[in-house]
Amino acid sequence: MKILGISGSGRKGSYNTALLGAAKELAPEGVFLETFDISTLPLYNSDLEQSMPTIVREFKNHIRESDAILFAVPEHNYTITAVLKNAIEWGNRPPNDNSWDSKPAAILSASSGPRGGVRAQLHLRQIMVDLNMHPINRPLLLVANEEEKFGANMKLIDPQIRETLRTMLVRLVEWTRKFQPNVQKIPA
Amino acid sequence: MKILGISGSGRKGSYNTALLGAAKELAPEGVFLETFDISTLPLYNSDLEQSMPTIVREFKNHIRESDAILFAVPEHNYTITAVLKNAIEWGNRPPNDNSWDSKPAAILSASSGPRGGVRAQLHLRQIMVDLNMHPINRPLLLVANEEEKFGANMKLIDPQIRETLRTMLVRLVEWTRKFQPNVQKIPA
Amino acid sequence: MKILGISGSGRKGSYNTALLGAAKELAPEGVFLETFDISTLPLYNSDLEQSMPTIVREFKNHIRESDAILFAVPEHNYTITAVLKNAIEWGNRPPNDNSWDSKPAAILSASSGPRGGVRAQLHLRQIMVDLNMHPINRPLLLVANEEEKFGANMKLIDPQIRETLRTMLVRLVEWTRKFQPNVQKIPA
Amino acid sequence: MKILGISGSGRKGSYNTALLGAAKELAPEGVFLETFDISTLPLYNSDLEQSMPTIVREFKNHIRESDAILFAVPEHNYTITAVLKNAIEWGNRPPNDNSWDSKPAAILSASSGPRGGVRAQLHLRQIMVDLNMHPINRPLLLVANEEEKFGANMKLIDPQIRETLRTMLVRLVEWTRKFQPNVQKIPA
Repeated sequence: MKILGISGSGRKGSYNTALLGAAKELAPEGVFLETFDISTLPLYNSDLEQSMPTIVREFKNHIRESDAILFAVPEHNYTITAVLKNAIEWGNRPPNDNSWDSKPAAILSASSGPRGGVRAQLHLRQIMVDLNMHPINRPLLLVANEEEKFGANMKLIDPQIRETLRTMLVRLVEWTRKFQPNVQKIPA
Repeated sequence: MKILGISGSGRKGSYNTALLGAAKELAPEGVFLETFDISTLPLYNSDLEQSMPTIVREFKNHIRESDAILFAVPEHNYTITAVLKNAIEWGNRPPNDNSWDSKPAAILSASSGPRGGVRAQLHLRQIMVDLNMHPINRPLLLVANEEEKFGANMKLIDPQIRETLRTMLVRLVEWTRKFQPNVQKIPA
Repeated sequence: MKILGISGSGRKGSYNTALLGAAKELAPEGVFLETFDISTLPLYNSDLEQSMPTIVREFKNHIRESDAILFAVPEHNYTITAVLKNAIEWGNRPPNDNSWDSKPAAILSASSGPRGGVRAQLHLRQIMVDLNMHPINRPLLLVANEEEKFGANMKLIDPQIRETLRTMLVRLVEWTRKFQPNVQKIPA
Repeated sequence: MKILGISGSGRKGSYNTALLGAAKELAPEGVFLETFDISTLPLYNSDLEQSMPTIVREFKNHIRESDAILFAVPEHNYTITAVLKNAIEWGNRPPNDNSWDSKPAAILSASSGPRGGVRAQLHLRQIMVDLNMHPINRPLLLVANEEEKFGANMKLIDPQIRETLRTMLVRLVEWTRKFQPNVQKIPA
C-alpha cells in the first residue's frame, strides 16, 4: 500500500514536514509512505491549464498512484496555507481530471500555539467534500506547542504523540482497505 | 476615501475581476477604488521573508494606504482560491506587520454555479477574525450563473445586482467612517 | 436495510419533512425508511441524564437499530436548527453512549431561498466528525425555492430532484454496505 | 451601558455560566451586566410563533434593551449547544422582529478539554453574520481545562484569564460606543 504524504509548509525546519518524517518511520509493515514537495508548484491560474507544467503533471501522477493521502496541515490565519490550497487546486484540475477523487485520507497538524491547527483541519475537511475524498474521523492529531515535542534533527520524541500517529496510520490502512476490496490482506 | 479592490482570480476573463470593474463605475462620489493584481505574487514561503520581494512590499503599501478593502472572491473547492490565500498571507507578514489590521471590508463573489461563492465568503470571514478586519454583514452579494449577468466587454448589466453593488459600496463607506471618526463628512 | 430519517423541522407543513416522505416512496427495494419526530424531545440538559426521559431512550434505540441515517436539514441563521442540534446531543449522551457512532449518513435540505441550506449542511458535516459518522459526499441535494418543487399534499413533483434523491438513496445503500461486509447482497 | 450575558449551558455547575459571574465582577465602572437563563425557553417551533410564549417575549425584551451581548459558549459536538441555538432562533423571530439586529457582542468559552471551545465560537460567528451582529475580534477568550481555573464556589481564580476577561470587557465597551455615537463618554 502506498501513502502520499503532503506537507502544507515549504519552509526548511517545518514541524509539519517533520511529522511526515515520523510517519515514515512509524508506518506499518507493507506500507510505503512517500512525500512530494508541493512548495515549488507554480501559483495556480486556469490560463496555465492549456499546457500543464511538467511539475504539475508529475504531482498529479503521484496522487493517482497512491492508495491514500496523509496531509500535514499547518494553520495560517485560521485556515490552511496558500501552499496547500494551491496544490489542492492543481490536483483537481483541469475539469474532469480530479486526481483526488475517492482517495482515503488522514490529517495531522503541528503548531506553535496551544490549539494545534484545529481550524485548518476543519477547513480542509470541508474542501475534501468537494474533492470527494474520504478522511478518517479519528484519532485527532494536533501537536500543540510543537517545539517541545521534537528533539535533535527534528525528530518527533513525544511518546504519546508517536503512539497516536502509529494508531492513525493503522486506522488509515484499515479504512483504505474498505475502499479497495480487492487488496488482499497479507496472510499472517 | 480610498478602497483597495482585490480579485481572487488571476485569469483573463474573470467575472470576479469584472465585478471590481463595475464597483469602480458605481462607487459613490469622493471614493476612489483602485485594484491590485495579486496573481503575480510569489507563492508564500516564510524563508523569503528575510528579504521581502519588491512586489510584496508594494502590495503591502497599497493595503496600508487604503481605508477599506473590497474582496472579489471566487470559490474553488468550497473555499477561497490559492491566489487569494497567498495574498492574505503576504499581507499578514512578517510577524508584527499585519497590513490588514483593523481594515473595514466588504465581500462579493461571482460563480458559474447556482450558489455563487457562499462557502468561500464564509471561510474568508473566518480568516478575517484572525486578521482583525471588520467586514460588513450586508448586503450579501453572490452573483450566481455569472455568464448571464454580464454583457459585452465583461460589463455587469444585471440591474438588480448593479443596485445591490451600489448599496454595498455606500454601506462600506458608512461603515468605514465609524472606524475613522476624524474623516470629515463632505458638507452638502 | 433500515434507514432512519430525521427532519430538523417540527413544524407542520415542513418541506424538509416532506422530502423524507419522498425518500420513503423512492427508496430502493429491500430498504425500509422510517422516521422519528425529534421535535418533541425535551431541551437537552446534562442534569437530566441521571434519569434519561423515556422518549430519549426510545429515540436512541431507533438510531442504534438503524443501518444508516438520512438527515433532512433546514437552515436557520446559517446553521442547523435547534431542534436538530438538540436531537444530536441526546443521541450522543450520556458519555460513552454515542448512538451515532460509525453510522453512515446522507444529507438533504429544502429552503425557501436560493441557496437551499448549503451552510447548514456544512455545519452538520463538521458535527459528524465528532460523532464519528460517515456521510456520503455526493450527490448534493439542496432544494432551493422549495414551494415550486412540491405539489398537492406536499408531494415532491420536480422530476430532476426526484431523480437526484433516488440516486442519493442508492449511493447511501452502497456506501452503507462498505461498512457492513456481512450484509448479504440480495441475489438477483 | 447594559450588557446582556447569555450562557449556552443550563446545567448547574457550568463553568461557562461561572465565567459570566466573573464578568459581572470585573465589568468596568458604569457598566451593568445582567444575565438571562435561556435553558427554560421552550424548544423553538414556528407553529408557536402565533402566540409567542411569555418567557420568550420577556427574553426578547432583555435583548432589545441591552447595548451589547456577552455570549458564554460551551462546545458540544464541535458546535454551539442546542440550548444556545434555541435562544438564538427565538431572538430572531418572528420574521421582521430580529431582536439581535445590530448588537455588538463578545464571546468567551470554557471547556474541559485542551481546545476550549474554538470550533463553537467560529460557528457562532458565522451565525452572527445572519443575525447582523458585530462581534469584537479580540481578545480570544478560551478557557481550556476549566476545572483548574476556578476555585471554591466556581470563582474564576486564574489571574491571566481574569486579566484577559477584564480587557475583553473594556474592548466591548469601546466597540459598542462606536455604534452609539450618542452615548456620552462620562467626563473624567
